[in-house]
Amino acid sequence: MAQIIVDVMPKPEILDPQGKAVTGALARLGYHDMSVRQGKRFEIEVPGEVTEEHLAEVRLAAEQLLANTVIESFDVRVQH
Amino acid sequence: MAQIIVDVMPKPEILDPQGKAVTGALARLGYHDMSVRQGKRFEIEVPGEVTEEHLAEVRLAAEQLLANTVIESFDVRVQH
Repeated sequence: MAQIIVDVMPKPEILDPQGKAVTGALARLGYHDMSVRQGKRFEIEVPGEVTEEHLAEVRLAAEQLLANTVIESFDVRVQH
Repeated sequence: MAQIIVDVMPKPEILDPQGKAVTGALARLGYHDMSVRQGKRFEIEVPGEVTEEHLAEVRLAAEQLLANTVIESFDVRVQH
């Protein structure tokens, strides 16, 4: 079973309140000097081998559903 | 600026309602045969080079804060 990974992250110019909250919580736990941004990770299983067609479909799906491309960027890759 | 990535995913034996919802929504959009699991991705910036000490700290932080290890597994790696 092949797996395609889609990482969705807030764009650099966009405020990331989740990441800010995690950065603050880490500092309170004693982990200073860490700056965190939080995004989403999707693991998508497709039947059989991953083809270029699968990847094109997943890219479209990411644009339409997985990421809000106004504020998020995404990256699609095959997991071996 | 070095970056450490923490991926947090629901454990295989745990139901994943977010992933199920995304799988269903993709099918309704015409993307069949895709099975999705959804997790979180953290991009953590540390000052200077990534050392073994940084990685050990991030692993501890992941256990304490980023992942709920009862239901989630996590993976820590350096992004080059």
